[in-house]
Amino acid sequence: MRIVFCSLDARADDWLQSLRDALPDAQVQEWAPGAPPAEYAVVWRAPQQFFDAQPGLRCIFNMGAGVDALLGLRLPPGAALVRLEDGGMGVQMAEYVCHAVIRHFREMERYEESQRAGQWALRKPLRRADFPVGIMGLGVLGASVARALAQFGFPLAGWSRTPKSMEGLRCYAGAAQFDEFLAATRILVCMLPLTPQTRDIMRRETLSRLLPGSYIVNVARGEHLVEEDLLALIDEGRIEGAALDVFRTEPLPAQHPFWQHPRIRVTPHSSARTLRDETVAQIAAKIRALQRGEAVSGKVDLQRGY
Amino acid sequence: MRIVFCSLDARADDWLQSLRDALPDAQVQEWAPGAPPAEYAVVWRAPQQFFDAQPGLRCIFNMGAGVDALLGLRLPPGAALVRLEDGGMGVQMAEYVCHAVIRHFREMERYEESQRAGQWALRKPLRRADFPVGIMGLGVLGASVARALAQFGFPLAGWSRTPKSMEGLRCYAGAAQFDEFLAATRILVCMLPLTPQTRDIMRRETLSRLLPGSYIVNVARGEHLVEEDLLALIDEGRIEGAALDVFRTEPLPAQHPFWQHPRIRVTPHSSARTLRDETVAQIAAKIRALQRGEAVSGKVDLQRGY
Repeated sequence: MRIVFCSLDARADDWLQSLRDALPDAQVQEWAPGAPPAEYAVVWRAPQQFFDAQPGLRCIFNMGAGVDALLGLRLPPGAALVRLEDGGMGVQMAEYVCHAVIRHFREMERYEESQRAGQWALRKPLRRADFPVGIMGLGVLGASVARALAQFGFPLAGWSRTPKSMEGLRCYAGAAQFDEFLAATRILVCMLPLTPQTRDIMRRETLSRLLPGSYIVNVARGEHLVEEDLLALIDEGRIEGAALDVFRTEPLPAQHPFWQHPRIRVTPHSSARTLRDETVAQIAAKIRALQRGEAVSGKVDLQRGY
Repeated sequence: MRIVFCSLDARADDWLQSLRDALPDAQVQEWAPGAPPAEYAVVWRAPQQFFDAQPGLRCIFNMGAGVDALLGLRLPPGAALVRLEDGGMGVQMAEYVCHAVIRHFREMERYEESQRAGQWALRKPLRRADFPVGIMGLGVLGASVARALAQFGFPLAGWSRTPKSMEGLRCYAGAAQFDEFLAATRILVCMLPLTPQTRDIMRRETLSRLLPGSYIVNVARGEHLVEEDLLALIDEGRIEGAALDVFRTEPLPAQHPFWQHPRIRVTPHSSARTLRDETVAQIAAKIRALQRGEAVSGKVDLQRGY
């Protein structure tokens, strides 16, 4: 069988070698115009030109959980699109979000300011009950984050498109319960897939419904957040701050106000990295299953968008 | 029954009111010279003078987990000493330690430096397997921290005076296995009680046995750590840094080198605060049990020191 690799970001040599090691019977090649047709593609932000030249693809494996970069393209009609499921990202997301939530609740930045000032300044403890955390998106990664936060005893709620139930989490679903979810949330964590329905979901109108003194953690996609609205709500004192890993334009432009904003933490889309070993192992296992005629999980519903 | 309250730190009025609310049948008073003898004492760093004036005490409740401040005193011979068990401190310790460990492993300080410099600088992910965490002390609080760290998938080891077994943790015990524990640890977390055996347990000789590029988290007592040895080992490049919540002198003196050290995070003994509601509820329940003639947990072995 033939596997073609096409990524605008990743270093191809390492990935080709890992795929060859995992699937010794396969012919694995990096894509270039004129490359022979393959049955399987392993891609990250591949261009339209790639898909046009590979009409015979049977399955396209996306090297990340979010497939939004591919949804605007014309994919070969016979090809399934399969996204990465966890692949080592769940625990990374849990780390990133717990770090941000604990840091905010425990006022760690203020303690660091005190250290810089050489001041031994014990602060009055805040009440955990006053910091309910709401997670938007309860897929594999959202569930991982919810489990991690649960053990720190924060009041927890989740919101998803379709009704879900998870232990330790108050679950809200759909547009009808969105306002109720927001009104019960102080720390809002976005783990949603990017679809036309979720684009701009964090904007003045929605963010204004959060509990006073709210805090935003976005580890999903920059397009979920209307950045000017966040800045305005922080300036107005309605939102206390944000930890943002994703942005409408990445890399974040040099003159963007987020860089030097004292209430906003910027990380360079580092919250959950695609780990080569875990990713290749998962994709190789799915290719072997497809070769045996078995079904695989993680297939994207192109209508739904994730 | 009579309860006497004596604390050098806490605001007495709030505590007296909480104790009276929880035990409406009791006479609860703040201690002053000449106060009538009581059966129960609720104390934090009470002076020798207090214990000399209260020879009839039946039980002394310490408002914290560590009783080291009382061990050098002569306590009334008939009195049991009972320490706080968790009382809301386990989850706070878990938060503090997870924040420190994630922050170090995920290089969050470096990302913050990049933000200050306005640089979108993605770093090569580190391998979780290269950051085994070793916890010294596996009491109620140590176990809480171990459970919290376990879910982030760090290789975990624990060391305690007597052999213990905990799921997900490689357990070492006693002096005989201490060097082996240190040699397998990169992030060292100290949760020990302070006793003559554990004083200065983190010193050049022991810290030098840790894996290269080690990191220290001390949330126990300042006297566990020889501070000059830590500074020297960081300067020599053998230790990468430390998150310290406790110090040999507290408040940390203004001229202490920890304040401005770039690799050392200082917090003002804030990792786990005594929470009044939880603490009073626990002590009140134990007083009611003792009044019914029942045994209570948390009794300190004065020989052992915890």
